[in-house]
Amino acid sequence: MDEPIFDIAHLGHVELLTDKPDESLDFFTRVLGLSESGREGESVFLRAFDDYEFHTLKLTAAPTTGMRHVGYRAASPQALARRVAAIEAMGCGIGWSDGDLGHGPAYRFHDPDGHVFEIYYETRRYVPPPEEKPALKNQAQRVPNRVIAPRRLDHLNLLATDVAAIRDFVPKALGSRVTEQIVLDDGTVGGCWFTVNNKSYDVAYTRDATGVRGRFHHVTYAVDQREHILQAADVFLENGVHIETGPHKHAVQQTFFLYVWEPAGNRVELANAGARLILAPDWQTVTWTQTERMKGQAWGLKTIESFHTHGTPPA
Amino acid sequence: MDEPIFDIAHLGHVELLTDKPDESLDFFTRVLGLSESGREGESVFLRAFDDYEFHTLKLTAAPTTGMRHVGYRAASPQALARRVAAIEAMGCGIGWSDGDLGHGPAYRFHDPDGHVFEIYYETRRYVPPPEEKPALKNQAQRVPNRVIAPRRLDHLNLLATDVAAIRDFVPKALGSRVTEQIVLDDGTVGGCWFTVNNKSYDVAYTRDATGVRGRFHHVTYAVDQREHILQAADVFLENGVHIETGPHKHAVQQTFFLYVWEPAGNRVELANAGARLILAPDWQTVTWTQTERMKGQAWGLKTIESFHTHGTPPA
Amino acid sequence: MDEPIFDIAHLGHVELLTDKPDESLDFFTRVLGLSESGREGESVFLRAFDDYEFHTLKLTAAPTTGMRHVGYRAASPQALARRVAAIEAMGCGIGWSDGDLGHGPAYRFHDPDGHVFEIYYETRRYVPPPEEKPALKNQAQRVPNRVIAPRRLDHLNLLATDVAAIRDFVPKALGSRVTEQIVLDDGTVGGCWFTVNNKSYDVAYTRDATGVRGRFHHVTYAVDQREHILQAADVFLENGVHIETGPHKHAVQQTFFLYVWEPAGNRVELANAGARLILAPDWQTVTWTQTERMKGQAWGLKTIESFHTHGTPPA
Amino acid sequence: MDEPIFDIAHLGHVELLTDKPDESLDFFTRVLGLSESGREGESVFLRAFDDYEFHTLKLTAAPTTGMRHVGYRAASPQALARRVAAIEAMGCGIGWSDGDLGHGPAYRFHDPDGHVFEIYYETRRYVPPPEEKPALKNQAQRVPNRVIAPRRLDHLNLLATDVAAIRDFVPKALGSRVTEQIVLDDGTVGGCWFTVNNKSYDVAYTRDATGVRGRFHHVTYAVDQREHILQAADVFLENGVHIETGPHKHAVQQTFFLYVWEPAGNRVELANAGARLILAPDWQTVTWTQTERMKGQAWGLKTIESFHTHGTPPA
Repeated sequence: MDEPIFDIAHLGHVELLTDKPDESLDFFTRVLGLSESGREGESVFLRAFDDYEFHTLKLTAAPTTGMRHVGYRAASPQALARRVAAIEAMGCGIGWSDGDLGHGPAYRFHDPDGHVFEIYYETRRYVPPPEEKPALKNQAQRVPNRVIAPRRLDHLNLLATDVAAIRDFVPKALGSRVTEQIVLDDGTVGGCWFTVNNKSYDVAYTRDATGVRGRFHHVTYAVDQREHILQAADVFLENGVHIETGPHKHAVQQTFFLYVWEPAGNRVELANAGARLILAPDWQTVTWTQTERMKGQAWGLKTIESFHTHGTPPA
Repeated sequence: MDEPIFDIAHLGHVELLTDKPDESLDFFTRVLGLSESGREGESVFLRAFDDYEFHTLKLTAAPTTGMRHVGYRAASPQALARRVAAIEAMGCGIGWSDGDLGHGPAYRFHDPDGHVFEIYYETRRYVPPPEEKPALKNQAQRVPNRVIAPRRLDHLNLLATDVAAIRDFVPKALGSRVTEQIVLDDGTVGGCWFTVNNKSYDVAYTRDATGVRGRFHHVTYAVDQREHILQAADVFLENGVHIETGPHKHAVQQTFFLYVWEPAGNRVELANAGARLILAPDWQTVTWTQTERMKGQAWGLKTIESFHTHGTPPA
Repeated sequence: MDEPIFDIAHLGHVELLTDKPDESLDFFTRVLGLSESGREGESVFLRAFDDYEFHTLKLTAAPTTGMRHVGYRAASPQALARRVAAIEAMGCGIGWSDGDLGHGPAYRFHDPDGHVFEIYYETRRYVPPPEEKPALKNQAQRVPNRVIAPRRLDHLNLLATDVAAIRDFVPKALGSRVTEQIVLDDGTVGGCWFTVNNKSYDVAYTRDATGVRGRFHHVTYAVDQREHILQAADVFLENGVHIETGPHKHAVQQTFFLYVWEPAGNRVELANAGARLILAPDWQTVTWTQTERMKGQAWGLKTIESFHTHGTPPA
Repeated sequence: MDEPIFDIAHLGHVELLTDKPDESLDFFTRVLGLSESGREGESVFLRAFDDYEFHTLKLTAAPTTGMRHVGYRAASPQALARRVAAIEAMGCGIGWSDGDLGHGPAYRFHDPDGHVFEIYYETRRYVPPPEEKPALKNQAQRVPNRVIAPRRLDHLNLLATDVAAIRDFVPKALGSRVTEQIVLDDGTVGGCWFTVNNKSYDVAYTRDATGVRGRFHHVTYAVDQREHILQAADVFLENGVHIETGPHKHAVQQTFFLYVWEPAGNRVELANAGARLILAPDWQTVTWTQTERMKGQAWGLKTIESFHTHGTPPA
């Protein structure tokens, strides 16, 4: 039996593109409660209050929207080297970059759908300025006095034209496990959820019905309690943010969720997983059928149409 | 730089002794909301609704109280072999046991304070009978219709006469990381928190001021939301359970907690960690000083005296 | 200026009919967490744990479903006499009944849509048997150890063919204030919310599009926290209860809600109003337009079709 | 049988004195989440987001601390006249004042301990400026984007040297009902809780052991959920606010509470009552004994010493 792979420690950051940089930045900071830790070129580096790294979201002004790249942090330099060797052998490598304000050298590659990934080990820890020092020293930064104040980056969701190919690819590249999947009646994989650690997923892929490659579905930040998501809904409402669906509980992964669109159209989720973790090293993939999915979310909410069609950039 | 060790997947179970077996069983099932999955000899096997293994608590009738052993599940057969080799080299091994109703062969050893540990890989997954089949297939068992319904085993806390020795021992034996510790002004280690995975701790040790070795402080089950702990307090109150302290938030690890004593005197905690996880592979141990600890818990609640003195069996 | 009327203290009870008495009783007790306080004839008397009266729900076996009558308790014998005089003068009185297991003499009348109301003053306080004595003496009964354990009856919703007529009638009969209403573009009153005390509503009427008179929309029990409604959704799911819509937040009255159908088809709501009360003695009716209602519930959930058509008995 | 009196609609506002006006104002707005609606002389007028009146807290710079007066709103002009007549007959009247920025003519009187009360009917409704218009029109103001955002004024607590005298006085003056009380073994009334409406209390009096008359214990704002109080505790912690005790649940009235001291020393509470209301028009006063009170709060938390001694102004 092959041993499970623990080379990748966790999802590190997502770089999102926005063609409305001022409105998007206002959304992510004033409404969503992220903090700015730096700027470089066209990018603003953002993080949740208990993210230990310099940033978990790199927001970059661009002529379009969507995701430019996603970064994962390796568990050690040795683990990074092992992953790079494996990825190079898979033939999908792009090569090394110097990193940016937030981390050191990163090895880039692309998934079968064309999304760009990078893996790195050397990182820059967030050091709070005096006015951001938390009262409790085991926390990265003080809790923002805003209704929405996510604790940390949770996961992202990408769209792919061929999710079955992705299901094969991600475990090989990152050492991830497939925790859940949707398999339609015709055998098509409708969605696939992956994790490199004890979280139930750090990246999910769902099928892009438009046939366009490389698109982005959403990025998710985690809050501590489900009630915080209910409160967040009021803040989105008061601020005129487009609430797409929720709050409700996913049947898949049982996450309590709320989806909104930031001003440029990128979808953002707030989520709470309760105490649910994937602790079994030999977790058996849960497979949902088409019939099961048609029941809607956990408590019966029908999945709304835009959830299947809206991605960034627009198709 | 040495690589982090991921050989142990997670805390598996705790065996508690009770000299009031009927009352204790009534507490753990009717009040605390655990389910019975089997019996063997003097033991009843219990689990929370989303624990994937056959049991996480083995409740054994005995002339005394306290913990008989704690079990950890290895990440693979190979990982188990590596740990056994390491532990044998440390000279604290006891040897192999055949396991019990809940798992296969286990290698036993003792910590410097005399507590018995075991590590195993082969396990028995819980298979729900028809009436316990959950509505959502990614969950081990249906949610019990009881106010208190913990999702899973979370951690345990042991007492030790020399926590500094423990701090050295556990990482070597299990590959754990030390996430937080208390160091008193005289250099004594007052407490130490360890994890083998992304949870902020799976075992904690605190100093036994009585000088007695091998004692047990508490076992903890995780609920999904802080509000569930507030509700639990009412159920404990209605059922005449001794509430020792809480609900409140620990400064150390920021866990929201509630401590009670089951009828035989073993301390039990309900806890919620929110979205807090240890994702950094190179997490830097947080050290609390004596002065900081004297401030009490996070919001100022003074740590009550019995928390420092009450353990099982009685000293 | 006329003085506000405080003759009616509060909504007292609802009598529901069921053609599946065993299944309905199982639902209301085992799933919804009500307690049985007595039986008489074809009726079972039920109440929530902190309802101070003998019953708030009278469940009666019958060949059909829907509501047989609703009872309100007067603030004093004098107040009762004033209301009876007023109602008799309105020409809609039915006459006195002897009451039942739960209360003394009641004066019955019907609203313009044919629903039967009664008002009474003499009541029977619930006296808990020893095993139901609460730990806290300011509570009617101990908290049931069930996930769903509503604190008290909250309100009911009736259907009416002419809500404008009802809007005129209820304040005259009961002394209620109209707290909110929906007025469609053609001037039709789509819904109307009434209160006799500080609750934001104790009865609501919405338009019955089927043109059938005297139908019932739902009865609502109040839980203490919104989180309890999220938990309730899981219990309904595990027990195969039809969840119609929710959890979500109403725009009207801002109640956090969850609607299910009990086995016989009567709609039941669990609700939480937070700290919202109507304290202003001269509260100004809030009027929602057709356009505003088309936005859906507070966070954008579309009101589902069955909410406009399903009532009991079936049309 | 005398009819219950409904002449007073609700607690209207409290005027607090502060000798640290800038720090106090910063606390009440930036930390506690109240909004400023006006200024006059040495006073700033504050309110919670869903208080319908112009203000519920009048914060006045002064050489000392404590409460200058408390205001109640009458249910109608006729009701106001009835109360004034009753109070004048009791011989404790002070006379009419012109009101202030927030309300019209008010009749002032003093309780047996020297606290100043006023009752008024004409009030000034809060009209939100465009940037404070709420998304939901049945709410007074938009929800502030702050962690602590109380919905409304809830109650106040005064100290009195002779609570038995107060227990006799308040129902006569305001028409209040006594919902709960503490009677010590020697017959002394330790505390008494009063309500004029369906809230379980709008004013409480507890015994001032110092023997000083006219002191203030605390003012309380209501939040929608218990979880909001847990979040508030973190905000107080991050902002260096003195947390006196809590979060915990009172046995008396079952309120979930958190007590802090604002910078000048006046005690402030955040509270949540869940769905608990006093609906019975003939509610029977709940009496707690000295023994019962010595058990501490609902879940066993001992009442801390300063709660019995700290009042404003200092004794």
